[in-house]
Amino acid sequence: VARIVCRQISPRIADLAVNRELTAEAIRDGVADGADFVVLPELATSGYAFTDREEAAAVAVGPDHPLFGEWATAAGDALVVGGFCEAGADGRLYNSAAVVGRDGVRAVYRKTHLWDREKLVFTPGREPPPVITTTCGRIAVLICYDLEFPELTRSVALRGAELLLVPTNWPLVPRPEGERPPEVVIAMAAARTNRIFVACCDRDGSERGQEWTAGTALIDENGWVVATAKDGAAAANFELSRARTKTLTALSDLFADRRPELYDGLSAAGALR
Amino acid sequence: VARIVCRQISPRIADLAVNRELTAEAIRDGVADGADFVVLPELATSGYAFTDREEAAAVAVGPDHPLFGEWATAAGDALVVGGFCEAGADGRLYNSAAVVGRDGVRAVYRKTHLWDREKLVFTPGREPPPVITTTCGRIAVLICYDLEFPELTRSVALRGAELLLVPTNWPLVPRPEGERPPEVVIAMAAARTNRIFVACCDRDGSERGQEWTAGTALIDENGWVVATAKDGAAAANFELSRARTKTLTALSDLFADRRPELYDGLSAAGALR
Repeated sequence: VARIVCRQISPRIADLAVNRELTAEAIRDGVADGADFVVLPELATSGYAFTDREEAAAVAVGPDHPLFGEWATAAGDALVVGGFCEAGADGRLYNSAAVVGRDGVRAVYRKTHLWDREKLVFTPGREPPPVITTTCGRIAVLICYDLEFPELTRSVALRGAELLLVPTNWPLVPRPEGERPPEVVIAMAAARTNRIFVACCDRDGSERGQEWTAGTALIDENGWVVATAKDGAAAANFELSRARTKTLTALSDLFADRRPELYDGLSAAGALR
Repeated sequence: VARIVCRQISPRIADLAVNRELTAEAIRDGVADGADFVVLPELATSGYAFTDREEAAAVAVGPDHPLFGEWATAAGDALVVGGFCEAGADGRLYNSAAVVGRDGVRAVYRKTHLWDREKLVFTPGREPPPVITTTCGRIAVLICYDLEFPELTRSVALRGAELLLVPTNWPLVPRPEGERPPEVVIAMAAARTNRIFVACCDRDGSERGQEWTAGTALIDENGWVVATAKDGAAAANFELSRARTKTLTALSDLFADRRPELYDGLSAAGALR
């Protein structure tokens, strides 16, 4: 069984020093809560609502930055997945997530689906989300808007991911009374249609007039929300091996029942706009 | 504006004569309610819980069967989408849906994703769901379990569908207190991630111990359920042209933001099982 702890912090815009402390503390809190995986929000080291690219560049860091050493120290035996504003060696900025264990940075994923004005600041990643084998099971890392592309979640599930860890910054959008945030509904469907676990770690607070949803959700392999944030954290224990079988009944299997010849290839070329 | 009326009837197993009356009456009721589209459940002419293939064969019909003439007469200016047990000219049985207007059968779709024991009775369709231009907008027809394949809903949306009409027979499955049927959650995500309207017409009653969900749902282009069944029917007015733009913000577009090079082709070959 893997214990996932999402720490729904409120990073301070463009203040690396404050966010270093805040994220390291959040990791320690997650580890104290027994986490095998600690998930932090998108852009946890930098905040989100930059006025321009220059402001983002001033707080961008590479994966060799000492703050990740602090994350590694705080992680202990847990694995941390958290968003950061990445200064690429190519001089570009990326909206990235680091996977950090006791020995340091294990992987970096650069968000491939940039939302709205992120396009004015960041370069989209060129590589699909990593699928990483851990002692607890196989995880994949996506960031926020990535999750809203069902072909992407399908492809990482087909590549063997059992658990999606998803740092997010969900802007608050209107929704009918009593409804969950729409991003959570999409995550529930991704979980159920792929029989995988999904953990979305959102952020709290507001930034320069941008209200955040604070919609952190842990979703089981049947697509049901089992935990949301309370006092800044959400946690759940997931038996990840349950995601290994896609069999639903004696004759039904979510993956074997696919008919790729009816849709693959259609999506790239067939758009009627 | 298009008015969609789902008639959540309870067909009688293996009784064509009764179901002919029942479906024609349901269409008349839908038309009386002002429908531009009347949707009936999956296998509305035959029932679902067959003991074996022979029982299904005994009530299977071709698209030239007079019952569709009755549907056409009842339809008037509306378009009807309803499930039927199809006797193919090839001697095979298909779990099909007919699109019927005043002039008769306009299209037949054969379910491509067969659920569980349907595989013992039916042959899966070889053609993707039809996308049909009507005076009210572009519709696509899927059947039940088809809807749970997000690559299929994506592909019909990319082909221009603005409204999915989905005859279903949803077997009742466990769900946490207060939750919607899981199939509805999946339909909501399909609507929102593609910015399309979705109308699922489920059936009512039970059959040989099989309880049905009676989960009919009409879902708008933002993914919200706007109507469920009451007294056997659900109706909504949808401005289908809203599904024509996929633009969410000045810089975000659900279709243009896709990164096909990161997932297309992966799904067919890349499965790690």
